[in-house]
Amino acid sequence: MNTFGRIYRLTTFGESHGPAIGGIIDGVPPGFRLNTDEVQAELDRRRPGASPLTSQRRESDKVQLLSGIFEGRTLGTPIGFVIPNTDARSADYEAMRNLYRPCHADFTYERRYGLRDYRGGGRASARETACRVVGGAVARQLLAAEGIHVSGFISRIGKAVRSSADEDFAPLEHEVEAARAAGDSVGGIVNCTITGVPSGIGAPLFAKLHSELAAAMMSIPGAKGFDYGTGMQAAECRGSELLDLFSSDWQGGIELSSNHSGGIQGGISNGQPIELRVAFKPTPTLLRDIPTVDRDGRPATLHARGRHDPCIALRALPVVEAMACMTILDQLLLTGHPLFI
Amino acid sequence: MNTFGRIYRLTTFGESHGPAIGGIIDGVPPGFRLNTDEVQAELDRRRPGASPLTSQRRESDKVQLLSGIFEGRTLGTPIGFVIPNTDARSADYEAMRNLYRPCHADFTYERRYGLRDYRGGGRASARETACRVVGGAVARQLLAAEGIHVSGFISRIGKAVRSSADEDFAPLEHEVEAARAAGDSVGGIVNCTITGVPSGIGAPLFAKLHSELAAAMMSIPGAKGFDYGTGMQAAECRGSELLDLFSSDWQGGIELSSNHSGGIQGGISNGQPIELRVAFKPTPTLLRDIPTVDRDGRPATLHARGRHDPCIALRALPVVEAMACMTILDQLLLTGHPLFI
Amino acid sequence: MNTFGRIYRLTTFGESHGPAIGGIIDGVPPGFRLNTDEVQAELDRRRPGASPLTSQRRESDKVQLLSGIFEGRTLGTPIGFVIPNTDARSADYEAMRNLYRPCHADFTYERRYGLRDYRGGGRASARETACRVVGGAVARQLLAAEGIHVSGFISRIGKAVRSSADEDFAPLEHEVEAARAAGDSVGGIVNCTITGVPSGIGAPLFAKLHSELAAAMMSIPGAKGFDYGTGMQAAECRGSELLDLFSSDWQGGIELSSNHSGGIQGGISNGQPIELRVAFKPTPTLLRDIPTVDRDGRPATLHARGRHDPCIALRALPVVEAMACMTILDQLLLTGHPLFI
Amino acid sequence: MNTFGRIYRLTTFGESHGPAIGGIIDGVPPGFRLNTDEVQAELDRRRPGASPLTSQRRESDKVQLLSGIFEGRTLGTPIGFVIPNTDARSADYEAMRNLYRPCHADFTYERRYGLRDYRGGGRASARETACRVVGGAVARQLLAAEGIHVSGFISRIGKAVRSSADEDFAPLEHEVEAARAAGDSVGGIVNCTITGVPSGIGAPLFAKLHSELAAAMMSIPGAKGFDYGTGMQAAECRGSELLDLFSSDWQGGIELSSNHSGGIQGGISNGQPIELRVAFKPTPTLLRDIPTVDRDGRPATLHARGRHDPCIALRALPVVEAMACMTILDQLLLTGHPLFI
Repeated sequence: MNTFGRIYRLTTFGESHGPAIGGIIDGVPPGFRLNTDEVQAELDRRRPGASPLTSQRRESDKVQLLSGIFEGRTLGTPIGFVIPNTDARSADYEAMRNLYRPCHADFTYERRYGLRDYRGGGRASARETACRVVGGAVARQLLAAEGIHVSGFISRIGKAVRSSADEDFAPLEHEVEAARAAGDSVGGIVNCTITGVPSGIGAPLFAKLHSELAAAMMSIPGAKGFDYGTGMQAAECRGSELLDLFSSDWQGGIELSSNHSGGIQGGISNGQPIELRVAFKPTPTLLRDIPTVDRDGRPATLHARGRHDPCIALRALPVVEAMACMTILDQLLLTGHPLFI
Repeated sequence: MNTFGRIYRLTTFGESHGPAIGGIIDGVPPGFRLNTDEVQAELDRRRPGASPLTSQRRESDKVQLLSGIFEGRTLGTPIGFVIPNTDARSADYEAMRNLYRPCHADFTYERRYGLRDYRGGGRASARETACRVVGGAVARQLLAAEGIHVSGFISRIGKAVRSSADEDFAPLEHEVEAARAAGDSVGGIVNCTITGVPSGIGAPLFAKLHSELAAAMMSIPGAKGFDYGTGMQAAECRGSELLDLFSSDWQGGIELSSNHSGGIQGGISNGQPIELRVAFKPTPTLLRDIPTVDRDGRPATLHARGRHDPCIALRALPVVEAMACMTILDQLLLTGHPLFI
Repeated sequence: MNTFGRIYRLTTFGESHGPAIGGIIDGVPPGFRLNTDEVQAELDRRRPGASPLTSQRRESDKVQLLSGIFEGRTLGTPIGFVIPNTDARSADYEAMRNLYRPCHADFTYERRYGLRDYRGGGRASARETACRVVGGAVARQLLAAEGIHVSGFISRIGKAVRSSADEDFAPLEHEVEAARAAGDSVGGIVNCTITGVPSGIGAPLFAKLHSELAAAMMSIPGAKGFDYGTGMQAAECRGSELLDLFSSDWQGGIELSSNHSGGIQGGISNGQPIELRVAFKPTPTLLRDIPTVDRDGRPATLHARGRHDPCIALRALPVVEAMACMTILDQLLLTGHPLFI
Repeated sequence: MNTFGRIYRLTTFGESHGPAIGGIIDGVPPGFRLNTDEVQAELDRRRPGASPLTSQRRESDKVQLLSGIFEGRTLGTPIGFVIPNTDARSADYEAMRNLYRPCHADFTYERRYGLRDYRGGGRASARETACRVVGGAVARQLLAAEGIHVSGFISRIGKAVRSSADEDFAPLEHEVEAARAAGDSVGGIVNCTITGVPSGIGAPLFAKLHSELAAAMMSIPGAKGFDYGTGMQAAECRGSELLDLFSSDWQGGIELSSNHSGGIQGGISNGQPIELRVAFKPTPTLLRDIPTVDRDGRPATLHARGRHDPCIALRALPVVEAMACMTILDQLLLTGHPLFI
């Protein structure tokens, strides 16, 4: 299934070394004055080669919007878009044609499909996330009109941590550089906060708001864990430590003494900021020789040549935000929340 | 949405204090000789009142299977079932009619629906998980015929931990008793392992196998976090520490030096055991007075009277297994994996 | 798939000779004061044995609503219901255990599932339509609150026709009696009109309003054809004969000189009455000996013993209305049309 | 919803006068050697300007396949495609900016979305069917490998009819020319036969095979009616006239004395050819002045200038076949039918 969402739906296509990647955004509310420059700007945020910390693959990543917009406003019809692939050095991967890269999807794709496009990971390449960013950029503008804002920050890289975007990023940056210097890679955690979500958004049972967010985040390449509010740490606590008490000067809205619930109770938003975290593994592509096997199980050595990111968490940040934007907008629409357009 | 799954689908209904809860299991493969006693046995595992550590509410929880089975075998048609509610002491909750219990779904349900069945949490009650266990019990039997087995254990309660089901449970049990003695509650973590899943099950992109598992697990009442394989801890590691190398005596199947991947690579199973964890918060229902507000925001005091579980992780264990069984079976069917029936 | 609808969803279960049939209605808007007597009354309309023209099988058909309603109002949670099977004379069907009834689903079910409940058609029995009537009865009440009304009539039985519910039904009734007297059966057509649907409901492309209605109607047992507006006859016409012209005293709403479009243009409602027709075949169950084959292909003779309806179109009428009610309500909700509750 | 299908899914985008139309085909089985020339050839069948009987709009209609194919074989990943719009004379439509064309989707789209791309019908243009033909062309090749073939013919245009593709088309052609000469248009019926479908494909209840086919066909622009087998005419018959009897030399497969059932019984295929009909209305775009109203309801006259088809049934033929191909393949996959790839 290459479709995400229920009402606001993104369907994507594309291999990293084919002619193009792209997608279709369905369920876009009509009559919205869309800023297409902002869509491109979001895409630029994740573009490789933008920082010395990330892959040196240089993609222009220019998105072409092909439909659904007329005289500057959305029509309510699907927005089809294409992002041409450029600077795809397939030759870099020729040597890997018959090799399975450890911890990559090479082996599993072949088991699932019987064949694969081995060039740069093909469909399994993180390049597909560019399409998610386009879908998220459109959603972000619609959410902003509702007073809903999504923002994330890197809270951990390797052993270095910080508790807010205001804290110094240098120690985390150092972890990335140290890993790169060692021809290694390093993991990290992305925190994301969604403010302005009205109370009453979401659903009980199987489509809980945090359940939908978990599925969205875990679908990002490299994601290994998800939690919200107090999260995993709640397992160590007593109930009396985590009570979010209603403040006594409650005025019909909701005001709580704390936000251990992370803005969601029983799968439905309570009006507080939604707080979530996504943990990313270090990329298994290392700039060193790795012992592996070929398609016949014969021992082989992998001489990595592809350009890669020593810390995928860095480039995952705008993707986490994009998935959050799409999920929240989808839930607003599913709940029948009227939009201010 | 009260439906779980894509091909193997469970749809449930029921408030905790209504006449009954129940559901419909659709997509059950035909011709399977179903052991209905085992279905009831699974249900008995989660029944309250079964242990001094859990709620003293005594439900007989007898499931009635109403369709889809003929002469002992499944017909391929939906299995409808009902579990009558008994011993529902609604009077216990009358006092809470106009109060919002902190960290419960009372406030959010009213914001979502405008009204709620305040008795025992109504639809938001963990009682609905009995229906998940029925759906999981049917799936478990079908998986067993494929050589696929799902088993879990409690790896943490509060400060006490253990790394396998073989280790002593007493320290964890003590955490529960200590919490109960204090009129408090405590969180915990459920680990779950799925063995025998063939390689090639799952999908890339948005419906990754671990993404589907995350959504399934996070939909369980009280779940606050999910991870798989090395999980959250991967964020602290270097890539070189987490490489699952193909063993050189690989024989067409797959044998790895380690399982940091948790049995899933690129969203598709690799044939190794699937390892996941789910963190549960302590129940916010405490046996002590709690300050709160009523529906008009006036300060009030909550005198808890309902029977409850000091550690929902304990009763979540069979539910985690049930959700795992349904998710894996659904993925096998979605992948078009032929079943040995 | 035993689920109908996208937002307002009905999932059903049950074999005609099992302990019960039933279903779950999901997506019911909350806070609606539901008249449960009217739900039973709708069910009584389709009950067999209600008229000398229909099957003499006597089902009490009492529906039990098990959830989703609290203090007389809908909760927004699923409404689970059960209709116990009574007076199921399975013995009537023992002789048919190994026989395939011509033009029934006996042979195709066995090819699809490998086995079947041969008693009274099992899941393939028209008895399942009782569940559709329950789902439709709830939808009908919600639509009435919106000023939307659904009503149908029999426009043809065999050679006898009429163009409105006001015309004499006697000639059509005579066709049924003549067929019954000959141990035969006869086909018919049900017309259905939906008034009060606001303009702008539906969707273009694949989920056109008439496309959804066609799927709904064709899913009724015995349906062989569907059309709307001028329908099949449009194939014989010139475009100039079918123009629905906007009246010049158009006042912001819409007023047309005619309704060849049947209330739908481009898959979206235009505010005019929606007019559709469904053709039903004569039941292939005849009260005479029929040559057939057994499961091994050996020639055999079928001595019909089951009670049946000489004209299923008669009992299909309330089912057509029920499917129309569910489809229109589902589309209103999908379009985000606010309900007056 | 701009997505068709459950497993084999086509999602489309595009306005008739935007830069391009296109789509994404998901659920394509992997490892299939796809003939891309045949895909283009199917597209050429529906291209306007191909015959004096159809619109003179000249579209090159060259499809660009952007993904999902590697070294000549399908990858099992989505096939994204784009068809650039050329020769779109928007100026032709400027005069219609504020006018509602009778029996078109102009008025209803504005009611649904609040705005519309008035150029050539925008999203409502039959041009979108080019994308359906691409999706159908890929499905057709997969079906051919299974021995399943789909072919249709025009059985009626206006008053002229024929009962097979072998009969003379001239009388029907004359009806088109007569309509065109009068600046008028004319309706027609497309018959479609699907051979080679194994028995046991489809589902009971709501997703009956003919129910899915009805939805697919009625979603084609201009479709007004659908039936299968004896179809609408069954309403006039006695049951004894429509019995498809099992032949006595039945050999485990199925052989029937007739095919009144149209290859489907109880919503599941029986192995006989599937026979269906779709009725199309005459296009409401006439080459004559038509009285109408503008967006403010003021009387106006429509001077048609756009190029159009006097008989949309002619160009609907390949679209009917395409929808049949996609529906049958989707059902084969949904039923878990193994494909010979």
